[in-house]
Amino acid sequence: MFAIYLECSKCGEKVDRGQKAQLCPKCAAPLFVRYDLDKVKAAFSPKKLSDRPYNLWRYAELLPIENEANVVSLGEVVTPLIALNQLGARLGFEALLLKDEGLNQGGTFKSRGAALGVSRAKELGVRAFAMPTNGNAGAAWALYGAKAGIRAHIVMPKDAPYITRLECAIAGADLYLVDGLISDAGRIVGKAIAKNGWYDASTLKEPYRIEGKKTMAIEIVEQLGWQTPDVIVYPTGGGVGLIGIYKALLELRAIGVIKTLPRLVAAQSSGCDPIVRAYEAGKKVSEFRDNSRTIAFGINVPKPIGDFLILEAIEKSNGTAIAVSDATILRAQSELACAEGLFVCPEGAAALAAAYDLLQRGWIRPDEKVVLLNTGNGLKYPETLNVNPPLLGKDDEIPV
Amino acid sequence: MFAIYLECSKCGEKVDRGQKAQLCPKCAAPLFVRYDLDKVKAAFSPKKLSDRPYNLWRYAELLPIENEANVVSLGEVVTPLIALNQLGARLGFEALLLKDEGLNQGGTFKSRGAALGVSRAKELGVRAFAMPTNGNAGAAWALYGAKAGIRAHIVMPKDAPYITRLECAIAGADLYLVDGLISDAGRIVGKAIAKNGWYDASTLKEPYRIEGKKTMAIEIVEQLGWQTPDVIVYPTGGGVGLIGIYKALLELRAIGVIKTLPRLVAAQSSGCDPIVRAYEAGKKVSEFRDNSRTIAFGINVPKPIGDFLILEAIEKSNGTAIAVSDATILRAQSELACAEGLFVCPEGAAALAAAYDLLQRGWIRPDEKVVLLNTGNGLKYPETLNVNPPLLGKDDEIPV
Repeated sequence: MFAIYLECSKCGEKVDRGQKAQLCPKCAAPLFVRYDLDKVKAAFSPKKLSDRPYNLWRYAELLPIENEANVVSLGEVVTPLIALNQLGARLGFEALLLKDEGLNQGGTFKSRGAALGVSRAKELGVRAFAMPTNGNAGAAWALYGAKAGIRAHIVMPKDAPYITRLECAIAGADLYLVDGLISDAGRIVGKAIAKNGWYDASTLKEPYRIEGKKTMAIEIVEQLGWQTPDVIVYPTGGGVGLIGIYKALLELRAIGVIKTLPRLVAAQSSGCDPIVRAYEAGKKVSEFRDNSRTIAFGINVPKPIGDFLILEAIEKSNGTAIAVSDATILRAQSELACAEGLFVCPEGAAALAAAYDLLQRGWIRPDEKVVLLNTGNGLKYPETLNVNPPLLGKDDEIPV
Repeated sequence: MFAIYLECSKCGEKVDRGQKAQLCPKCAAPLFVRYDLDKVKAAFSPKKLSDRPYNLWRYAELLPIENEANVVSLGEVVTPLIALNQLGARLGFEALLLKDEGLNQGGTFKSRGAALGVSRAKELGVRAFAMPTNGNAGAAWALYGAKAGIRAHIVMPKDAPYITRLECAIAGADLYLVDGLISDAGRIVGKAIAKNGWYDASTLKEPYRIEGKKTMAIEIVEQLGWQTPDVIVYPTGGGVGLIGIYKALLELRAIGVIKTLPRLVAAQSSGCDPIVRAYEAGKKVSEFRDNSRTIAFGINVPKPIGDFLILEAIEKSNGTAIAVSDATILRAQSELACAEGLFVCPEGAAALAAAYDLLQRGWIRPDEKVVLLNTGNGLKYPETLNVNPPLLGKDDEIPV
């Protein structure tokens, strides 16, 4: 295990990695796990991986678990990187790929964060955690928490995807709905933590979920034969996935596995676009987006706590941020299903819509290798679709 | 490619494998793909697999696709085989494992059948197919069909899982609901096929989906280090999964990869148990189960067309058939989530309930290695659960 300490992502303060650490004790910014990358470089090589299980745990040198016995696994898989040849050609891309995070346990990339977050919480002796959620993260943490024997207290908006409520409940979590937004859920969780001393598993308030999410980037690089694509487009709400991808890429470059970084794109909905607004205004942090509203519930985050990290990842990778309309998102979702047989979540569809927009503007060239992240399975969002197939009687025939 | 011909599973009639074959032209029983197993034995070895993609296409020698260019892939993964250590120990199993088919594309094992069925249909020049479905198979075929550019005509009971309706529709399939059962859907499809000349993709009326489903068994054997478990418990409706598993095991034995067969168990709901009744009466075929009804919709098949094949697989493997109540199924589903963090479909929960019953009866010994098949993702069945978490106001606190 090569993690050496936690480091504040803003002020650089170092924190003992053996603590149940939350935010930076000095400036309250998120903490990052730091590794002895010289030692990782000496220990890690792509060739060593051939004998390891084909899942995210194969990247052990870049993960923060000290004792393998603490790994909490629900049967992780390496999610597929799928060439969108038909749709890509029609839209004008020569190499368009989709990393399908919908095949994670629970149908969401949030499971990667929960796998590492809960495993490390178990290792640190956590008995109970609490978190606000827009649905998917809470569900993933509830399920991993159940396996770990850690009590989960979850608060989600009543409008969060209905199925995530079922996942929390069947896992035995202590679940509450709130008549409000995730920010309201966050306040309720904050009060409960202050009173009960639970571990705070809120986004970026614990340093380990990001270590799980960063494995998306390591997998992409391995799946491309240890090469980087030219562009990665990520649907961005809280943005931890994008921050994790950027962190992984820096680590892979530091240990000599890759040489160049892909340009990172934050795709948002025009109904909730704080990162796009901040990026376009040349700012380092975002402003609260009032009256945010989008069909892509997972990216309805009006003021991400890690906004400065998202903006840094975009800027330093020569990336960009772009917003697309809900109508465009729904059209992209339909096109992915009709042309490629993939039923993605609205957030994943936003990534496609954003990439197409950037291609048309010339920001992406047709010959560039572009990876879209589909962050979840379309199966989890029945409420975003409305179909009315004809109803036949038993003796009817299919109309010609 | 080592497939040599199609063979009737009942009368042995041989059929040219280049045809768009459906049922046996002589006796109307299902056709099986037969391979030159001597040649497969010479060509295939576990060691050769290390360089191949980690998905079902790695078993090419035992698959019926002639030209790799015809493979229709939605990014298949090897589904995890998960040790249920906690729940197993509590129930009295020393080695209880779950093969989680919920991580297939579309959240169902039906995608394996669609991957092979649609790929081979494309290879044979099929332009349009029709099928009745209880939901999941139709959804999987619609999505794979979309990628293949093959028109899908799907008829499903109006009570089939709602989400499968969305999958068919978003994939652009021609979808109808019927106010009746899958048998009514089958009659409507039969009339439409007679009129329009579509390819009949009904269960066991085309010989290729079984070739996809059999890969469940090959994966299990590979995941166990090319060993067989003692028992495989399969939730059985139409039973093609079980028939496919048995076919794969015979093929693996014929090519010398395994020596013994696991005992195959058909798990049914006591609300729809035609196989259990036939097995207990020592019959070779089942009788139509009147008024069938179970919360596990995927195994609500009152008279499976492949009943004689299911019963043969059970008998020849020294297996058995057992029914469990819907109440037991729901309890097992909850236990899997609370103890192991896995949100399985009701059918998968039936497999656990059946295994536990057999353990209590002494039919399974505590020290035997038992593999449960979870055929689908719990996410697809929100209608089987009902939860009512407390609703908080924005300024409320979590009650102590």
